[in-house]
Amino acid sequence: MKPTSHKSVPSKVIAVPSTISRELAEVVAQPLPSIDIPQTDENWRAIQTQLDSARSDRTRLTAKALGAKITELVIAGVTCYRVEPKEVPLLNQDRMLVHLHGGAYVLGRGIGAAQEAVLVAHATKTTAISVDYRVPPNHPFPAALEDSVAVWQELIKSQSPNKMALLGTSAGGGLTLATVLKLKELKTPLPAALFVGTPASDITKTGDSYSTNEDVDNGLGRYEGFIEASLKLYACGQDMKDPFLSPVYGDLSGFPPTILISGTRDLLLSNTVRVHRKLRTAGVKSELHVYEAQSHADYLRSYPSPESQDALREIALFFDQAML
Amino acid sequence: MKPTSHKSVPSKVIAVPSTISRELAEVVAQPLPSIDIPQTDENWRAIQTQLDSARSDRTRLTAKALGAKITELVIAGVTCYRVEPKEVPLLNQDRMLVHLHGGAYVLGRGIGAAQEAVLVAHATKTTAISVDYRVPPNHPFPAALEDSVAVWQELIKSQSPNKMALLGTSAGGGLTLATVLKLKELKTPLPAALFVGTPASDITKTGDSYSTNEDVDNGLGRYEGFIEASLKLYACGQDMKDPFLSPVYGDLSGFPPTILISGTRDLLLSNTVRVHRKLRTAGVKSELHVYEAQSHADYLRSYPSPESQDALREIALFFDQAML
Repeated sequence: MKPTSHKSVPSKVIAVPSTISRELAEVVAQPLPSIDIPQTDENWRAIQTQLDSARSDRTRLTAKALGAKITELVIAGVTCYRVEPKEVPLLNQDRMLVHLHGGAYVLGRGIGAAQEAVLVAHATKTTAISVDYRVPPNHPFPAALEDSVAVWQELIKSQSPNKMALLGTSAGGGLTLATVLKLKELKTPLPAALFVGTPASDITKTGDSYSTNEDVDNGLGRYEGFIEASLKLYACGQDMKDPFLSPVYGDLSGFPPTILISGTRDLLLSNTVRVHRKLRTAGVKSELHVYEAQSHADYLRSYPSPESQDALREIALFFDQAML
Repeated sequence: MKPTSHKSVPSKVIAVPSTISRELAEVVAQPLPSIDIPQTDENWRAIQTQLDSARSDRTRLTAKALGAKITELVIAGVTCYRVEPKEVPLLNQDRMLVHLHGGAYVLGRGIGAAQEAVLVAHATKTTAISVDYRVPPNHPFPAALEDSVAVWQELIKSQSPNKMALLGTSAGGGLTLATVLKLKELKTPLPAALFVGTPASDITKTGDSYSTNEDVDNGLGRYEGFIEASLKLYACGQDMKDPFLSPVYGDLSGFPPTILISGTRDLLLSNTVRVHRKLRTAGVKSELHVYEAQSHADYLRSYPSPESQDALREIALFFDQAML
């Protein structure tokens, strides 16, 4: 047979594999998501209110369970949350994490912005600032990026960037990369390390796993639908391959040491490994961790599964090495 | 909807993505393999003769193109090939690579055994010994393992294991891991580093990507068929979860630093990441590289694509760090 540019993959049944923990298996067994695409700004705001409120409730519970304290504050005019974990050893008292939440650039406002920050602050025993950046429909691109950059610039007035890490998952991972691209452009000091979880590094439907893991990833499902609509609402007519929107197209040379996490079922597996390859080729210290059978951001969704704790342990180890 | 242990994935069409080199795209565009299952030992030998001969022809061409010299020799009673790359700098003259070829434990005998060894020897500028271990139907498990262990034990009589790396892809990756498990058991000195390419670390159909990448990986296609038949011919009735057959079930603590390579379409992606996680959890220095859109061992199949050369560069860098 001859080479062809397209290949048919027959329908199949995939089981929850026996190679993962019981806790992760419960997440892997969940059905695919289905969220209707909002048709008006009012619809968008309604879904934001509903989903952000649910995430905020979960965040309060998580913080309580882990003994973390969350305080709202304003930095450079941007609402943020300071997360103080139960324990901050002496060595970590001059360290700080800056966190950018996920949610397809549309969801995740309010105290729920800090959900991942609570987990990483706890695991790394380090104080975190989670940025509640502005989102569309009111504030499309580049509002989120302006906010993350403004907060960073304000924080480094009183903190050494050599003791700071920047991090986020999904849209938060994409925004982490875009923020560093912008800081480079502005010649602002960069963080000592990045954690970039399954990043929205390419918000066009480019990358192999958008196809191969379509309808396999039960966190995202597929690009078309709510995800695509959210990303387009954010891009608001700008070129979606602009490196500040799709940072995989940016110049990643000179980036800080970066740890990346994904899963074998992740719709954004290609978004993740493409960034890893670009960083490695640019000579940046960068390591990749891919978890068995995990869909998009399952290391967060399955917390406190053993796999989730393992991922957080890797992040803590990586930050420790970079901030010594 | 409620959690279910099985999920239906509809049929889909996957394209060759725009995110890879032209050279790799030619490999990704190839159709799925179809090899009939041999029904008799005579059939097995016929397919071995045919495919091994073709691989040997390719190996001679590759060696010639790269200026490498291949010499057949016998070590501890086992046929081996010494691969001397065009250039061996002074720093590398006391180093040695020991290579175990792939081929589902059935294929790859003859000078073709050394195909990968030629590429890695060239990229690392280091002499390699490729082990032409015995295969079924004449010599099932544990013949291959006996051969790899015997060669290693003989070589370290005159070489420092601190300057030696053990490596292989596919069955060669599985055999690399199994060999180290056996060396541990025998309290024989271990290599300084391992390269384990998309390893046959679990020869039962266990691991998520056996399903999710079924009919997506155009190198292997699927577990059922020629692959399964070959692995069963090798196991020859032994428990296929025996760690010397499926080393992911072994105790990987104390392993040498290990670099692992896979691809987003790899049927053995789970085999690879499961080993990576086990190594990391055991405290072993280990790094993972996953290549966009690559099926099983495409870093070899697509040589000299930029991605293939990038993977070889990573192996060389890793070995350099481990053998200094």
